[in-house]
Amino acid sequence: MLTTACSYIYKTYKKKMERVGEQVIRNKQVIFKDYISGLPKESDFLVKNENTTTLKLPEGSEAILVKNLYLSVDPYMRLLMQKFNTGGIFTPYQLSSALEGYGVSKILESTHPKYKKGELVWGPTKWEEYSILSNTQRLFKIEHTDIPLSLYTGILGMPGLTAYGAFFKVCSPKKGDCVFVSSAFGAVGQLVGQFAKHMGCYVVGSAGCDQKVNMLKSKFGFDEAFNYKEEPDLDAALKRYFPEGIDIYFENVGGKMLDIVLLNMKFEGRIAVCGMVSQYNNVDNFEGVKNLMHLVFKAIRMEGLQVYQYYHLYPKMLEFMLPLVRQKKINYVEEIVEGLEKAPTSLVGLFDGNNYGKQVIQVARDL
Amino acid sequence: MLTTACSYIYKTYKKKMERVGEQVIRNKQVIFKDYISGLPKESDFLVKNENTTTLKLPEGSEAILVKNLYLSVDPYMRLLMQKFNTGGIFTPYQLSSALEGYGVSKILESTHPKYKKGELVWGPTKWEEYSILSNTQRLFKIEHTDIPLSLYTGILGMPGLTAYGAFFKVCSPKKGDCVFVSSAFGAVGQLVGQFAKHMGCYVVGSAGCDQKVNMLKSKFGFDEAFNYKEEPDLDAALKRYFPEGIDIYFENVGGKMLDIVLLNMKFEGRIAVCGMVSQYNNVDNFEGVKNLMHLVFKAIRMEGLQVYQYYHLYPKMLEFMLPLVRQKKINYVEEIVEGLEKAPTSLVGLFDGNNYGKQVIQVARDL
Repeated sequence: MLTTACSYIYKTYKKKMERVGEQVIRNKQVIFKDYISGLPKESDFLVKNENTTTLKLPEGSEAILVKNLYLSVDPYMRLLMQKFNTGGIFTPYQLSSALEGYGVSKILESTHPKYKKGELVWGPTKWEEYSILSNTQRLFKIEHTDIPLSLYTGILGMPGLTAYGAFFKVCSPKKGDCVFVSSAFGAVGQLVGQFAKHMGCYVVGSAGCDQKVNMLKSKFGFDEAFNYKEEPDLDAALKRYFPEGIDIYFENVGGKMLDIVLLNMKFEGRIAVCGMVSQYNNVDNFEGVKNLMHLVFKAIRMEGLQVYQYYHLYPKMLEFMLPLVRQKKINYVEEIVEGLEKAPTSLVGLFDGNNYGKQVIQVARDL
Repeated sequence: MLTTACSYIYKTYKKKMERVGEQVIRNKQVIFKDYISGLPKESDFLVKNENTTTLKLPEGSEAILVKNLYLSVDPYMRLLMQKFNTGGIFTPYQLSSALEGYGVSKILESTHPKYKKGELVWGPTKWEEYSILSNTQRLFKIEHTDIPLSLYTGILGMPGLTAYGAFFKVCSPKKGDCVFVSSAFGAVGQLVGQFAKHMGCYVVGSAGCDQKVNMLKSKFGFDEAFNYKEEPDLDAALKRYFPEGIDIYFENVGGKMLDIVLLNMKFEGRIAVCGMVSQYNNVDNFEGVKNLMHLVFKAIRMEGLQVYQYYHLYPKMLEFMLPLVRQKKINYVEEIVEGLEKAPTSLVGLFDGNNYGKQVIQVARDL
């Protein structure tokens, strides 16, 4: 009944719009239903087919209308699915609205002086087929289209810039440093490991399954890797791989792993805190980290980061990365699923360890 | 009986030494009896009168023989009273030996090319009247003797250099920054607050009694101060003093205070971790800190430190501090007790909040 009613309203609306010369089309969306606690489930999201959008921007606006091509599935999104105090930094998702995240989009219309119809951009967009983006400050134009566009959700997009800024700016790496990367198969981790090898560091990664562990070594060139789920004693594992201690820890998981790493850091070690995925489903009761005294003992610098801090480095990052990408000197595993219908599964898979490399949703095939 | 026996041995030894032209004298010591857990008690230490020392250095040695004038009583000493893993950085005290710590000493003999008889030094020494120091790398010569020598245990010594290095190097302060100092009446805290005021910052300190709180404002020029023991809701207290958030937190206490501060930091805030005195008596089971995700949310830098990292800054520090000290533009509260007999009481007092400002033991009056 509801569907029939919606369909009627849609047809009436479409007819009305067409009368004034504006094209109205279906705009499939992934809707956030309600705030959650614990692990996200597919049923927390609704793929909605009934929405429409008018392919015309309001007069007097300063915005762009985009067709979303690829959407990036990122762990931080979980943090926006719950209301909790982030010190005003993150705004939780609005209920009954499309999810928001990073993506690659094509501009269909623009009333913004900086953007033109036909240009490609990557940056914050919405989980829907078409979006009107009025906040364009965090968008980048895509100028190198010889590279697969999906890579602008990863290696040349937000995770790439995060890895680049966090590793080179926060970690102060130098040749011979001993580097540990947790969640090393993730979108950021795989890059950090390769950057570290590029710098002449010794690099060890952890992941949650043997297949990923093998790939860390065979595909990404990590010196060593281990499956943290198979290590009954994480401290012993770290001591096995780092008998002299760790110079740089690239933190993606938090909790118990961080506690044990602190025991194994070297004097004047650096910890880049990129994320703490083990805590994202438990924001009301984060796990306590006990060994912070080691920050003092070993004069360790531990630094959180947000990708926005590195936006000014993007041209420099491209200069560094583009030749490596083109010459296939840097590897990147993405898992691309097609269609917004599959988006909830991909998003849920981030937290059960079942997915594999950078998760990307292809929303549309054609440019 | 034992005393009589010791006295006999001492007399015999003294006689023997005097035969070969070497002066043997009594060397009172504060002995560390056994590893402890929980708060230190006076009975954990023994003031021993029976020890003697020969006022002559072994031939072929490269060392100095010093007369200790002032000893510095510092919270970190508690950490050396227990065996636990500090990653090889701190060596626990040896049982039945004199405690070790910072002090001001006069050189009586030297076989070290860098040092001459009669010179004054500050740096690591032992809790006894006379010490032979063979590791002289961490000693500084005292060249400005118009300043009371006790201040080289504090404002011009280790706490001063710690405060200077940690505040100016780690905290990256700038005019208008909102600065919070915990344990603000301590040897380091009182200086940090004054440095911050000197830089044009807004400064709030916490302490454990009202008298200290009043002094922070009246003597050290803190803008605000509060008694943390009287605040049922620390988060509310911090929000009262920092409605816009904290740019710089100078961490001396750890535990719960750190957890609440993390919630109240600003974007790109800095935390200098100088110490975590609330945890020193509980090294087997440090309190877990839950809000580390805020390092990511707000891109906070949190950095531990050791005074050795700033040794090269000492000349620069003196250049900055000496005029301020001479012109009484910087204040410093020290509590000097006379005699090694009172050393255990002073040391124990560090942890029950009963002492007041920088604790110093005057071992000898004469130079």
